[in-house]
Amino acid sequence: MAGSTFGNQFKITTWGESHGKAVGVVIDGCPAGLALTESDIQYYLNLRKPGQSRYTTPRKEEDAVEIMSGIFEGRTTGTPISLIVYNKNARSSDYSDIARYYRPGHADYTFDAKYGFRDYRGGGRSSARETIGRVAAGAVAMKLLEACGVKICAYSKAIGPVSINPAHFNAEDIFNNPVYMPDMQAAAEAEAFIAAQMEKQDSCGGIIECRIQGMPAGIGDPVFEKLNANLAKAICSIGAVKGFEIGDGFSAARSQGSVNNDAFTTDTAGHITKATNHAGGILGGMSDSSEIIFRAAIKPTPSISRTQHTVTREGEPIDIQIKGRHDPIIVPRAVVVVQSMAALVLIDALMQNMTARVDYLRDFYKN
Amino acid sequence: MAGSTFGNQFKITTWGESHGKAVGVVIDGCPAGLALTESDIQYYLNLRKPGQSRYTTPRKEEDAVEIMSGIFEGRTTGTPISLIVYNKNARSSDYSDIARYYRPGHADYTFDAKYGFRDYRGGGRSSARETIGRVAAGAVAMKLLEACGVKICAYSKAIGPVSINPAHFNAEDIFNNPVYMPDMQAAAEAEAFIAAQMEKQDSCGGIIECRIQGMPAGIGDPVFEKLNANLAKAICSIGAVKGFEIGDGFSAARSQGSVNNDAFTTDTAGHITKATNHAGGILGGMSDSSEIIFRAAIKPTPSISRTQHTVTREGEPIDIQIKGRHDPIIVPRAVVVVQSMAALVLIDALMQNMTARVDYLRDFYKN
Amino acid sequence: MAGSTFGNQFKITTWGESHGKAVGVVIDGCPAGLALTESDIQYYLNLRKPGQSRYTTPRKEEDAVEIMSGIFEGRTTGTPISLIVYNKNARSSDYSDIARYYRPGHADYTFDAKYGFRDYRGGGRSSARETIGRVAAGAVAMKLLEACGVKICAYSKAIGPVSINPAHFNAEDIFNNPVYMPDMQAAAEAEAFIAAQMEKQDSCGGIIECRIQGMPAGIGDPVFEKLNANLAKAICSIGAVKGFEIGDGFSAARSQGSVNNDAFTTDTAGHITKATNHAGGILGGMSDSSEIIFRAAIKPTPSISRTQHTVTREGEPIDIQIKGRHDPIIVPRAVVVVQSMAALVLIDALMQNMTARVDYLRDFYKN
Amino acid sequence: MAGSTFGNQFKITTWGESHGKAVGVVIDGCPAGLALTESDIQYYLNLRKPGQSRYTTPRKEEDAVEIMSGIFEGRTTGTPISLIVYNKNARSSDYSDIARYYRPGHADYTFDAKYGFRDYRGGGRSSARETIGRVAAGAVAMKLLEACGVKICAYSKAIGPVSINPAHFNAEDIFNNPVYMPDMQAAAEAEAFIAAQMEKQDSCGGIIECRIQGMPAGIGDPVFEKLNANLAKAICSIGAVKGFEIGDGFSAARSQGSVNNDAFTTDTAGHITKATNHAGGILGGMSDSSEIIFRAAIKPTPSISRTQHTVTREGEPIDIQIKGRHDPIIVPRAVVVVQSMAALVLIDALMQNMTARVDYLRDFYKN
Repeated sequence: MAGSTFGNQFKITTWGESHGKAVGVVIDGCPAGLALTESDIQYYLNLRKPGQSRYTTPRKEEDAVEIMSGIFEGRTTGTPISLIVYNKNARSSDYSDIARYYRPGHADYTFDAKYGFRDYRGGGRSSARETIGRVAAGAVAMKLLEACGVKICAYSKAIGPVSINPAHFNAEDIFNNPVYMPDMQAAAEAEAFIAAQMEKQDSCGGIIECRIQGMPAGIGDPVFEKLNANLAKAICSIGAVKGFEIGDGFSAARSQGSVNNDAFTTDTAGHITKATNHAGGILGGMSDSSEIIFRAAIKPTPSISRTQHTVTREGEPIDIQIKGRHDPIIVPRAVVVVQSMAALVLIDALMQNMTARVDYLRDFYKN
Repeated sequence: MAGSTFGNQFKITTWGESHGKAVGVVIDGCPAGLALTESDIQYYLNLRKPGQSRYTTPRKEEDAVEIMSGIFEGRTTGTPISLIVYNKNARSSDYSDIARYYRPGHADYTFDAKYGFRDYRGGGRSSARETIGRVAAGAVAMKLLEACGVKICAYSKAIGPVSINPAHFNAEDIFNNPVYMPDMQAAAEAEAFIAAQMEKQDSCGGIIECRIQGMPAGIGDPVFEKLNANLAKAICSIGAVKGFEIGDGFSAARSQGSVNNDAFTTDTAGHITKATNHAGGILGGMSDSSEIIFRAAIKPTPSISRTQHTVTREGEPIDIQIKGRHDPIIVPRAVVVVQSMAALVLIDALMQNMTARVDYLRDFYKN
Repeated sequence: MAGSTFGNQFKITTWGESHGKAVGVVIDGCPAGLALTESDIQYYLNLRKPGQSRYTTPRKEEDAVEIMSGIFEGRTTGTPISLIVYNKNARSSDYSDIARYYRPGHADYTFDAKYGFRDYRGGGRSSARETIGRVAAGAVAMKLLEACGVKICAYSKAIGPVSINPAHFNAEDIFNNPVYMPDMQAAAEAEAFIAAQMEKQDSCGGIIECRIQGMPAGIGDPVFEKLNANLAKAICSIGAVKGFEIGDGFSAARSQGSVNNDAFTTDTAGHITKATNHAGGILGGMSDSSEIIFRAAIKPTPSISRTQHTVTREGEPIDIQIKGRHDPIIVPRAVVVVQSMAALVLIDALMQNMTARVDYLRDFYKN
Repeated sequence: MAGSTFGNQFKITTWGESHGKAVGVVIDGCPAGLALTESDIQYYLNLRKPGQSRYTTPRKEEDAVEIMSGIFEGRTTGTPISLIVYNKNARSSDYSDIARYYRPGHADYTFDAKYGFRDYRGGGRSSARETIGRVAAGAVAMKLLEACGVKICAYSKAIGPVSINPAHFNAEDIFNNPVYMPDMQAAAEAEAFIAAQMEKQDSCGGIIECRIQGMPAGIGDPVFEKLNANLAKAICSIGAVKGFEIGDGFSAARSQGSVNNDAFTTDTAGHITKATNHAGGILGGMSDSSEIIFRAAIKPTPSISRTQHTVTREGEPIDIQIKGRHDPIIVPRAVVVVQSMAALVLIDALMQNMTARVDYLRDFYKN
């Protein structure tokens, strides 16, 4: 299946393997006239770049993005924007063993089952490097969202058993600590927890939370293209995500209607709003103008250096120790990926919404 | 946006409102030659039909499906299958109040915000009756899955605080109790819990679990069309779903790599399999031949007869009491909807997988 | 393949066979707020209805359309519009022979080759009745185009060797003669020509022309979604169409650049326009604000009552005489189908164009 | 709109402008296991490369393709194949004038109308260099078609008034003359005709014909995804194409049913076939196992050095002489583009056909 394309009006197609020449993305459908430079995109790529702290793989990659098309005199032209990031520090020799066996928790086996063979170097297409295209495209989406008055903020909410304290929440702190938590104290505890896992040659997971402000009401669609459904797909398409919830999420399953229902009211400006936000900003698949809030559960990094049991391609049992350079935790580097995927969903929904009423067409075509 | 179409190779388009003439679905891309009768479909529709127990709305609907096209001499012809269910017991007068105000927890406000007005009768397109088309199409998908050796089983795992006891699990009991639990004892407790909510004019939620057996390895795609991502979208597009998780889901976020990784091994027949199944049957977005297991969090029914605060369309505060006929819990009737949406995703993925290798093309075209 | 869906933002899905219960269409993505009644749609269906003249099949069908969903208080709600036309005069007995052999010029053989069997009654899904859904959806598109200031006019340009005389062109005459020509004199000659074919138990073809006025410049897209490419697909998807050309079309292949190029100039209002229109109103895949003009070549009706040679399903030679009720010419009844398909392409392109510039987003979301 | 993606199962996305850094294409959905090298692709790119004869622009471009992803150990992996061709001989200074005015017959005006501004250097995205991505992807499709037993042959059928003589047809001669005609004598006449246009600072057009052999019966779909409809879109999406016809095409409009109908018969091997092929190999939108034959009308090159009248961006009249390096005829270089677009349509249809019957699923999944 052609599974590397995402979006409808704002459509992206990513390509590239961990140890191939490069990874990249083509963005098609970006409106014309948006000011865009490589540094706009580089800012976000740097947030997911490896080698930033002791909790990420020591593989050194500049991850420098190059704009290949779609920009003229500093602005988008409406034609496809092709972005490339060359792989510079690929050390394929690290991965020669992987060709022979199936790493637990990885896609080695399923790739072979589907395609008959695989590019095993560094996980090939199932490597986290695949997310570079998502983040590069997400950066463009973020600029468009800004033009629409929408802001997205994502962060680590929990790492292993360490959760942020809502009372300490400070969005400005997110990128002031290596675990991307909006709570410096929790961040310090999380660092200690990660360090302990590293000592044990183990890894850990966590929860990423994402908040979206400024979405007007009515964005998204009833039935299959619900805004939350598209967010769910976008987020669950990120490699290590095992769960998605919006608003009160799984807690809502234990609540009562009398508690979970959010009463409508009006704000000081007289606009209709909700007194509470158990729903997480979406009702019936469409934004309700409250903050949209969702969470993603991230599994522990499957690559651990501890000895593991598995089988070879031929089904022979084997004990392995995974070499190479790996993150002890995926969560921090995935924060910007979650934000990027959310941005892609939101801009597409905002664009599609512009034809929701015949009056919008009349106004646009002045008739 | 055209948001009522779902799927690629096996594509469905649903239509219809709660109090319109009928609801229906067009299935396009169904392979030719499948034996199919109205009773094949009716079986599943009956599982979601209202009025089946004291825990569902007393609205009486036969929900009798009629095949309008696509079948000839008892078999699918490969052309679109149009299915219709007439609305027979629509009592629009019950809903005349709703036109004026916004019910908490419902899509009234967001529909108005998007489209400028809404068909308020019975919730219009955001009514649970919209799921009839999903279930009818899902029934056809179930028959195709059977031809591929795949089985799906869904049930209520929890209702409010009452969870099934894995030790009592008996799939054959699922439809032997009105709450569709595979554990008669838990079912009895759940019934008591629901009854208590009804006494309080309140409602409750729960968790639906779905298990899929017989999926060969390699179904689904890397990157955006991961099998779990498409399941997440499918499930989160169901009205009351607030969360989705696969395998260990949110628990995985607190686990370690050494625990969460599933060791590969071989079964007695020598086939590669996994010793455990924390992953829930999907690795890297593709099925790994283990059982696929996922859960959906369902919110409490928003329609409760207790007095609630809200605003009118003009933003004036108002106290309302919702009349009409409503379920005190959505979970049981949503079980077959969850199963249907899973079936739609699986058959589409199985069909798309048939072109994954050039050898498949060579074999098919005998060249 | 799911091949019965057309369009992106304005998306239609047709269903139904010639001798099934009904034919229909679901329109998804229609903007909300459009005034729409059954008679708006019936007007166009009546133009393609059989039994209107001695040059169409005497099969009597009212082709009365019924709106099943998507309209509330006389206006579109933004949700899917389901339209049904029941087949009332299906005489399947006429077709019992067809089950055994392959009619020349028909899809009998290719349906069997693809699907293994076919609904042979009246041609099943390959019957001209399939176009009812297109025309019903086209009627809705026509109303939306009106809201955008766009007008479409289609007519028979040639029937066999009889062409309209441009000097006699009168759009108001189109539906004043049974062959739908904008030239009463040519129409009379065409009628005589058709009558002569009928005497010989033969059939004839012709050319349909379509003119579109009021399209603003810039509609359509570069590369694959060129407005002319989508028109070509739309028109060539109509059963009997064998060719499509825009502007000077095949004549342009014999022209010179110095002749074929249309000089830009300004009109009396100072707007940029073209001095000539060899291009047919589209440059680089986008409308250039001149009249869009294209033509479709329609083959002779394949069903003729004259004896023909063919083979049975088993490949045995057989001489056949096709019974049943058939048009001696397809052209007149296809005029409204061509117009409808053009309308579907245009409204989709107009809707998609509303996100072409970032300033459009800024204006819409007032930011 | 996201208009640079083409295809469903075999999906391509092109990007790049004439004078940007590079042009490229991402192929998504290519089956795994296909042997593929850069030289497989280069062969086709060389057929459209400029500077090959005195009848093409003297712009010298190597058009060397580089595979960036999707190949491992010489075979496709099933993941996206990214192909890049760098622009090496871009002389943007030639085009500085174009910024100010609208060239007749070009997309300058419509790009400005749609997007508000344009990358005017060498026509930007509307340059013929855009077709490099189509041809590179088409080369991969050609290899897949070979695996399915399908062959495509395209050539110049007519250049201006000079047509090939069917009696002289020799497919092996096609690339033995600079105008790509399968008739050396006609080619010589065509060369003389082109030379005469060049003397007059003028340009000419022509007709490309394409023949496809080996397509099994039943490929393509009824209704909107007819094989001929998709071919029409594919071909009409090529810049200079003004018309498309299949089989007898526009001539069929003047024919009779008794002539135009192709009688079914059996070949010496007992397979069902047609005695004639007026239909051009497709009936009811599906291949009928006869040769598929279609034609495209190509307009004269709009860039001529003769003085032309036009307007500036501000609407002021101006006389221009187009500088730069231009082909006096588009036809020969477009031959491989037509072939490539046909290949893309065919492979997609062949892939989609593999799920047409439930028995195919049963066989594949051995159930």
